[in-house]
Amino acid sequence: MLVALGGNAILRRGEKGTAEKQLENIRVTCRHLVKLVVDGYGLIITHGNGPQVGEILLKNELSKSVLAPMPLDVCGAQSQGMIGYMLQQSMRNEMKKAAIEIPVVSLVTQTVVDEWDEAFENPRKPIGLFYSGSEAEVLRREKGWQMVEDSGRGYRRVVSSPEPREIVEWEAIKRLFESGVVVIAAGGGGVPTVMGEDGSLRGVEAVIDKDLVAQMLANYVQADFLLMLTDVENVFLNYRKPSQVTIDRMSVAEARRYLQKGYFAPGSMGPKVEAAIRFVETGGERAIIASLEKAVEALAGSAGTTIQGEG
Amino acid sequence: MLVALGGNAILRRGEKGTAEKQLENIRVTCRHLVKLVVDGYGLIITHGNGPQVGEILLKNELSKSVLAPMPLDVCGAQSQGMIGYMLQQSMRNEMKKAAIEIPVVSLVTQTVVDEWDEAFENPRKPIGLFYSGSEAEVLRREKGWQMVEDSGRGYRRVVSSPEPREIVEWEAIKRLFESGVVVIAAGGGGVPTVMGEDGSLRGVEAVIDKDLVAQMLANYVQADFLLMLTDVENVFLNYRKPSQVTIDRMSVAEARRYLQKGYFAPGSMGPKVEAAIRFVETGGERAIIASLEKAVEALAGSAGTTIQGEG
Repeated sequence: MLVALGGNAILRRGEKGTAEKQLENIRVTCRHLVKLVVDGYGLIITHGNGPQVGEILLKNELSKSVLAPMPLDVCGAQSQGMIGYMLQQSMRNEMKKAAIEIPVVSLVTQTVVDEWDEAFENPRKPIGLFYSGSEAEVLRREKGWQMVEDSGRGYRRVVSSPEPREIVEWEAIKRLFESGVVVIAAGGGGVPTVMGEDGSLRGVEAVIDKDLVAQMLANYVQADFLLMLTDVENVFLNYRKPSQVTIDRMSVAEARRYLQKGYFAPGSMGPKVEAAIRFVETGGERAIIASLEKAVEALAGSAGTTIQGEG
Repeated sequence: MLVALGGNAILRRGEKGTAEKQLENIRVTCRHLVKLVVDGYGLIITHGNGPQVGEILLKNELSKSVLAPMPLDVCGAQSQGMIGYMLQQSMRNEMKKAAIEIPVVSLVTQTVVDEWDEAFENPRKPIGLFYSGSEAEVLRREKGWQMVEDSGRGYRRVVSSPEPREIVEWEAIKRLFESGVVVIAAGGGGVPTVMGEDGSLRGVEAVIDKDLVAQMLANYVQADFLLMLTDVENVFLNYRKPSQVTIDRMSVAEARRYLQKGYFAPGSMGPKVEAAIRFVETGGERAIIASLEKAVEALAGSAGTTIQGEG
């Protein structure tokens, strides 16, 4: 099974991103995940990296008068190393407590995107520091960054969020998964790369939706379940409105219809439902969206939202 | 075979550590390594991370009034992600040019050290920024850092360099290696961890000799050769003196004798020769110390220094 961890599995909204706090949260997360291992499931774990890559990027910008700043793809790879390390250490420790000795590793993962993806014409994802109008102008000119005014607080760089096309390291991930190793991979949706005409890869400064990459990886390795764990217990219609409806299960057709009608928030539940649909349509058995705490119940069908081929 | 890359494979002395420069050097490195793949060798690649983890650490110190600095173990994991990414991308690209399609991956790797290692009583490895005497006093008091006066330029933190005891992820590395994947692992000697009485791991702020870890990994995976590539072509006696002698091959007994007589510099050729001795003594066929450019010739015995059981 592939478990896609939401950002709250590592750092909750408003928390200060110290190593201690992140490790503390990750320990709790791993305690939940180990229950799945105890139940006999093989795991591939993917995770977000938004706050972490954001901090690495800021540290680079704040030190740029002294040290060469790293581009976004390299910062993303750093965040994979950092989060992977904390996750694999905690998973091992929590499994050990349950008397389970299974190897756990994190793999640095690259995701290929299309250089001609229309997202590159219209970058929308703000990253890094806020700058004044004149600073923004300099960055625009000298670095070619696209800058936009953001929430009245100044100018920020925006990057694109292209569609994932291929996960470069999927084969090694599959081999390890099939040999019973717990594999952490595709952190933050993978490091974004584009493929030249000669087939060579190079990093690009972009972000990739982590849920869509998790789905792609789940299909590549032929996982039976795609379990997306987040900070809400279910998928809802009319979320946080008086008319809120909890969805326990829905067919792919229903999910597609709700999605098209705009029931799910774009950078939030929308991509999760889209990932669920694609997973099942590409041969996956079941996609489940649930809270971290209810992972086991969600697999048993008594919590969370299950998306399947048949209603 | 296990190939241990020296620091010069990524960044040469005096070069500015931009991403571009490092990627450029890594591309050259990978062109040499691909020759070994073309010759039919399976590869595990280890690498140093000194300048890279140093820069990540400095960026943390320079931004600490704004963002929580990460401890040394987490910075090390970040450097593994970063260097692993650049290496695996370049290896793939260079193999592609040679029409070879073999998966390449980097694994985040932890190394266990002994909490009671005597090195912890006597930390000697300076890291991070230079501080004034009064700043040093504050850091000593508030963070428990050990501070020493360094080369007349101020005070620096010193950390320990304990002996490696175990590589946590060796089994997954071995499985991938045996299945034909090119594996990048144990970057910077692995992230240093200690094991609690309950068997749980936690990171420690230390550095581990990367050559000794490379040797340990080479023995774990039962590699036939340990190839340490550096910026000199051979092991020498009386290096850079008028009486300099080039060693083409030596037995383990000879190597041990020279080492004990102090022929090899401590943090430089010394650990490489020590690693070579341990590798052969633990069952490895041949250890070779050579320059990156002469890797192929060194394997054929016409360059570099070979250390074997028999003279």
